[in-house]
Amino acid sequence: MRELNVALIGYNFMGKAHSYALDNTDFFFKNGVKPVKKVIVGRTEHLVKQAADNFGWQEYATDWREVVNRGDIDVVDIATPTISHMEIAIAAAQAGKHVFCEKPLAMNAEEAKRMLDAARQAKVVHMLGHNYRRVPAIALAKKLIEDGRLGEIYHFRGVYLQDWLLDPNFPTSWKLDRKIAGSGPHGDLNAHIIDLARYLVGEIDQVVGMDKTFIAQRPKVQVNEQLSGNLTAQGDQSQLQEVTVEDAAAFLAKFAGGALGTFEATRLAGGRKNHERIEINGSKGTLAFNFEAMNELEFWSKEDPVEIQGFRKILVTEDVHPYIGAWWPPGHIIGYENTFVNQFADFFNAINKGTGLTPDFHDGWMNNKVLDAVTRSIASSKWERVDGE
Amino acid sequence: MRELNVALIGYNFMGKAHSYALDNTDFFFKNGVKPVKKVIVGRTEHLVKQAADNFGWQEYATDWREVVNRGDIDVVDIATPTISHMEIAIAAAQAGKHVFCEKPLAMNAEEAKRMLDAARQAKVVHMLGHNYRRVPAIALAKKLIEDGRLGEIYHFRGVYLQDWLLDPNFPTSWKLDRKIAGSGPHGDLNAHIIDLARYLVGEIDQVVGMDKTFIAQRPKVQVNEQLSGNLTAQGDQSQLQEVTVEDAAAFLAKFAGGALGTFEATRLAGGRKNHERIEINGSKGTLAFNFEAMNELEFWSKEDPVEIQGFRKILVTEDVHPYIGAWWPPGHIIGYENTFVNQFADFFNAINKGTGLTPDFHDGWMNNKVLDAVTRSIASSKWERVDGE
Amino acid sequence: MRELNVALIGYNFMGKAHSYALDNTDFFFKNGVKPVKKVIVGRTEHLVKQAADNFGWQEYATDWREVVNRGDIDVVDIATPTISHMEIAIAAAQAGKHVFCEKPLAMNAEEAKRMLDAARQAKVVHMLGHNYRRVPAIALAKKLIEDGRLGEIYHFRGVYLQDWLLDPNFPTSWKLDRKIAGSGPHGDLNAHIIDLARYLVGEIDQVVGMDKTFIAQRPKVQVNEQLSGNLTAQGDQSQLQEVTVEDAAAFLAKFAGGALGTFEATRLAGGRKNHERIEINGSKGTLAFNFEAMNELEFWSKEDPVEIQGFRKILVTEDVHPYIGAWWPPGHIIGYENTFVNQFADFFNAINKGTGLTPDFHDGWMNNKVLDAVTRSIASSKWERVDGE
Amino acid sequence: MRELNVALIGYNFMGKAHSYALDNTDFFFKNGVKPVKKVIVGRTEHLVKQAADNFGWQEYATDWREVVNRGDIDVVDIATPTISHMEIAIAAAQAGKHVFCEKPLAMNAEEAKRMLDAARQAKVVHMLGHNYRRVPAIALAKKLIEDGRLGEIYHFRGVYLQDWLLDPNFPTSWKLDRKIAGSGPHGDLNAHIIDLARYLVGEIDQVVGMDKTFIAQRPKVQVNEQLSGNLTAQGDQSQLQEVTVEDAAAFLAKFAGGALGTFEATRLAGGRKNHERIEINGSKGTLAFNFEAMNELEFWSKEDPVEIQGFRKILVTEDVHPYIGAWWPPGHIIGYENTFVNQFADFFNAINKGTGLTPDFHDGWMNNKVLDAVTRSIASSKWERVDGE
Repeated sequence: MRELNVALIGYNFMGKAHSYALDNTDFFFKNGVKPVKKVIVGRTEHLVKQAADNFGWQEYATDWREVVNRGDIDVVDIATPTISHMEIAIAAAQAGKHVFCEKPLAMNAEEAKRMLDAARQAKVVHMLGHNYRRVPAIALAKKLIEDGRLGEIYHFRGVYLQDWLLDPNFPTSWKLDRKIAGSGPHGDLNAHIIDLARYLVGEIDQVVGMDKTFIAQRPKVQVNEQLSGNLTAQGDQSQLQEVTVEDAAAFLAKFAGGALGTFEATRLAGGRKNHERIEINGSKGTLAFNFEAMNELEFWSKEDPVEIQGFRKILVTEDVHPYIGAWWPPGHIIGYENTFVNQFADFFNAINKGTGLTPDFHDGWMNNKVLDAVTRSIASSKWERVDGE
Repeated sequence: MRELNVALIGYNFMGKAHSYALDNTDFFFKNGVKPVKKVIVGRTEHLVKQAADNFGWQEYATDWREVVNRGDIDVVDIATPTISHMEIAIAAAQAGKHVFCEKPLAMNAEEAKRMLDAARQAKVVHMLGHNYRRVPAIALAKKLIEDGRLGEIYHFRGVYLQDWLLDPNFPTSWKLDRKIAGSGPHGDLNAHIIDLARYLVGEIDQVVGMDKTFIAQRPKVQVNEQLSGNLTAQGDQSQLQEVTVEDAAAFLAKFAGGALGTFEATRLAGGRKNHERIEINGSKGTLAFNFEAMNELEFWSKEDPVEIQGFRKILVTEDVHPYIGAWWPPGHIIGYENTFVNQFADFFNAINKGTGLTPDFHDGWMNNKVLDAVTRSIASSKWERVDGE
Repeated sequence: MRELNVALIGYNFMGKAHSYALDNTDFFFKNGVKPVKKVIVGRTEHLVKQAADNFGWQEYATDWREVVNRGDIDVVDIATPTISHMEIAIAAAQAGKHVFCEKPLAMNAEEAKRMLDAARQAKVVHMLGHNYRRVPAIALAKKLIEDGRLGEIYHFRGVYLQDWLLDPNFPTSWKLDRKIAGSGPHGDLNAHIIDLARYLVGEIDQVVGMDKTFIAQRPKVQVNEQLSGNLTAQGDQSQLQEVTVEDAAAFLAKFAGGALGTFEATRLAGGRKNHERIEINGSKGTLAFNFEAMNELEFWSKEDPVEIQGFRKILVTEDVHPYIGAWWPPGHIIGYENTFVNQFADFFNAINKGTGLTPDFHDGWMNNKVLDAVTRSIASSKWERVDGE
Repeated sequence: MRELNVALIGYNFMGKAHSYALDNTDFFFKNGVKPVKKVIVGRTEHLVKQAADNFGWQEYATDWREVVNRGDIDVVDIATPTISHMEIAIAAAQAGKHVFCEKPLAMNAEEAKRMLDAARQAKVVHMLGHNYRRVPAIALAKKLIEDGRLGEIYHFRGVYLQDWLLDPNFPTSWKLDRKIAGSGPHGDLNAHIIDLARYLVGEIDQVVGMDKTFIAQRPKVQVNEQLSGNLTAQGDQSQLQEVTVEDAAAFLAKFAGGALGTFEATRLAGGRKNHERIEINGSKGTLAFNFEAMNELEFWSKEDPVEIQGFRKILVTEDVHPYIGAWWPPGHIIGYENTFVNQFADFFNAINKGTGLTPDFHDGWMNNKVLDAVTRSIASSKWERVDGE
């Protein structure tokens, strides 16, 4: 069993999810490679120490530059706010480390391109954290499309709806600060549905968008004394701060291949918790998926006899379905956290075998291009081209 | 266009539904026959007069015996409480009238047999009001089974859940009086699922059951001053009466063909309004149906590739589906009331063509046999045979 | 009972639906007024004669101008292709007839305004055929919003998906001819969701859109020898014609009240038959509705205790729900056709009482303004203002 | 951090699930206690060795008697076929070990009572593996019932449907051998719904049941050369063996508290993979749950205004819901395997604190009593009493 030493930069929600997945990858997938949770890195010592304890890391550190240059580190896993992705990723690549980076890859396409160049130049394996490609239902959707079951694709329809900002007393945090996060749900959530659209349908050519901040001021967040794996926080109601990111962003898209697309992300859709729903209509069939019921895939086929045509609800838990061989018998669903297990299994397997995999920094760059074009469109009030490579 | 004069006995909820359907049958189905709403009959003159006005009958009358012997009446439609079905049906048949009767056919199998004998002897067309067989989704289920898509049937699972007695202040009515109704949800609701079971699976051989009256006393109902098409009523809270029918009845069944069945009916299932749900599992497929979404049929087929197996939700609104040719384009659903239109279209078409149709009084007799066997089983605390013809 | 004589112009799918509803309005709603199906009008004599027979009209005629000026006609009901709406409606209004007109009201806002002016000048009752406002679930949604259960509205999300053009051999028809229909799903389907958006959220201020014709040529339709109430037709595969309307149209919208909206209509969404789905998110709650399950309304309330928050599926069949008092007991759903019964009950009641009602030609005008602005936006590739009254 | 050494007896599907959960318990739950995977035990050396490698156990062994008496073992975890539960559990308890045992507890109530007595006498912590009590949605259901939100309970309705025996070529295995498994889906699946019924509603007083083996012979299973975590197996089609357990078992029940219950388990319900569905109707509300969508709980409340009554789909992923504080933000579902994490967290926490917990061997005993009474009823063809303690 080959062991690979990992340095994880970041320790909040994604820190917890990554730590879990690194622990369980070799339990489910027997690929001859095992990640070792060597060192977790964060700026606030008492919190990163707590994270190291809670999540079972051998060491903790506060200086990521030092860590990414350590000789005993094989893999750098970046789970920090977007603003620091580029700097860490380039340093890690230049130090010859394989790099995993959470999404969105960068603050903009230019940054993303520099990261891609650095990773390519260093010839390291690079992966982008769009774990939703590792949902078995999405992997099955990809297969059904590749098998021709949808025919020519006419429509992509994606929404990513959450409601954690519905309470106006929910405080600001780095996710609501444009300087650190880059954007609100646009980079956080639209990035996810753009990735699925690119994965399942293809490149996007033109976009036109809109966004809005409905709740312009929120209580100042109180400094965390404790780790939080969830999206909750305490605010100081007496101090209001400006929210500098949008609450919602939507756009229309024309795909290079001819399909039309609609995209929408919001944090103000009451009752929608993690409602990433996509639907794809083609000349021969339709697929629909909702992350809140992530073990299911809906499929309609024009090739069925008309009498029995209807949307099938496929419970994606059969041995013949992607990834499921590693998991449980039919009808025993997997959880959100296991999309990370699938993802890291693929990542470490690719490192071990010396191959590449997707989504990688190229995907991140293309994704940032779409995000950027929407942002330009919002400023110009007209359609904007994404501009290919 | 041949016209057939109808006498309707009864004028409440079923009186309204039948009147509607008689009005609309020849609009949707062009069979060369048209029912004429000649005379509506009821015991309480001011109410039956109001019904005649509201529902558009040419005449009203209070003496059904006189009416069923009128020379200008072709069809007698019985929508009275169960206690009077036999007497009216036999008189009508003996007068040479075609007879339609609401379900359950009779208070017990013995009565039902006498009705069947009278109808057969008179050679009139007789039909039983199990309108759910005329739901397009159920007719499609029948076709799929006959086409062999389910293979050998292993399981029938039926529940009919309502909640209109959940409020203990809901008053007594004839439906809660064993002398008039014969039973509670057993004859009212189990009769429906027994009919679907017999239609789709086959005859039942043995049963064992249980029932219970949870709310033993209710306010005395106040005499209606007005017609009511709904199941609402006013009660006098100061006068409590015994409820003499069960609130719920359930039974296990062994079908003659080898399948196992479970049946349950209750009026105390909160939130379930008209939740008649059946599921049939066979060696090659499964069908599921719920009356609350009566335009849909769920179908799972073992013959699909495993990768895309799943429950299809068939929206039964296509031209190729039973009855739909007479209705609307795909996706435009029909309502509860239109199951009666389909039913009467079939009935008057059969009269016009001089053929029979099902469900008829024979079905009613067999149905009453199952109901009776369950009742015996509840008394004996053991399995009872249904006893065939 | 006051009788009002109706002239129906048009006899296909809508002709059938209107005829049905006119027949049944006074059965369910006791408003002291009854429509009389006096004369049905169409250009093709053998077809309009057949329609008169099938749908039960006293007379038929081929010259609408003559009919709308007859002294015995009280109401003109326009169910023709869009191109002729204006001419008929203005003539009818000028003749002092109350006017009902199918949607979209006109080929463009300018036409619509002339119709509105004519109707106002003539002081006749005018109504626009957005029957979906008469779905009890939609009427309930309106009430819940007016009661404040949604709070400030942030998002409107509407799609209207059909698939009847998925087969490239489906022939052209007037619905695919821009000169007659004005547009494709934009005027046919987006008009419906625009109406619901205006009804439930308010006026739209700015839009940006896109559209596309995916299948540019189709077989020439064969002349109908028979009436067809459905959307089926035969084509001549040897003769291809250009399709001059779009297959799909989508747009983003900013509401005057601050909400963001997304709209999409297509006839190429496989498996979606009449999938008009809307969702509205507000500061206190969310509502969702899908026409394919039109008796249900989904509602999520922030005011519930967090522990039991969740989307309620309200089966809109209770006495306390709009329109249901006229229909059936709980759990007994109504059909598509009955939205027309509700609609005409309101229309004839308004005529009888001498009041107005909505949606009227003003709504049609405002709706056409939104449709026009989207069309301009598609041409200009940028956001366009709807321009208020 | 207190460490507790575990010996796991058994290594197939449950061996994998338990190993996973033991690994992750202290990651999610910070109770100051950590299970250590000391030794895994099985009869077939090459398979148990493979299991030790795959599942990460420090040691393996083939003689459970020796292991349960080792001084360094604190906890014995029994995941073997039912036939050996009693012997191992009693030996473990007598050796002073805390005991966890998979369900059903024993071959019959008599055995179960001996296990209970042994555990009580030894004063060890004992737990039964009904992990479904640790599904957050079920724990929430329990809370809602205890809070009085259902009122008096009238109905329990439970089915546990699977389809892994639908293929007649699926081979026999220990699960189809009465001598080893005790029974088929009765002990395997009905035991689960009986446990939920007892947990949520209370003790069962009387039962009457039926069962059936539809496919009497199956190919002989081939000896496993490899571990299998799933329910798949290869058979030798040339050698048929008798199936000695039922394929399906159903029963009616009367609860001591007055409610009526229906129970059904089958392995021949096509398309149902792990469809454990329960519904509970009370005087004030209804709850429904389906394991295939185990992160959701449906709830209907009579206490809502009638206008907005409806079944809520509660996505049980909020901080305020049971167990969720240890997991992820709202809308991020957990998987099947994590019910075992919740379960073992509770078990080791109870050991650490020196308290008891449920379900324990007493629950197993009561459960076996119900199973036994149904079996007697099938033999006697009449109702049988469960007989209390």
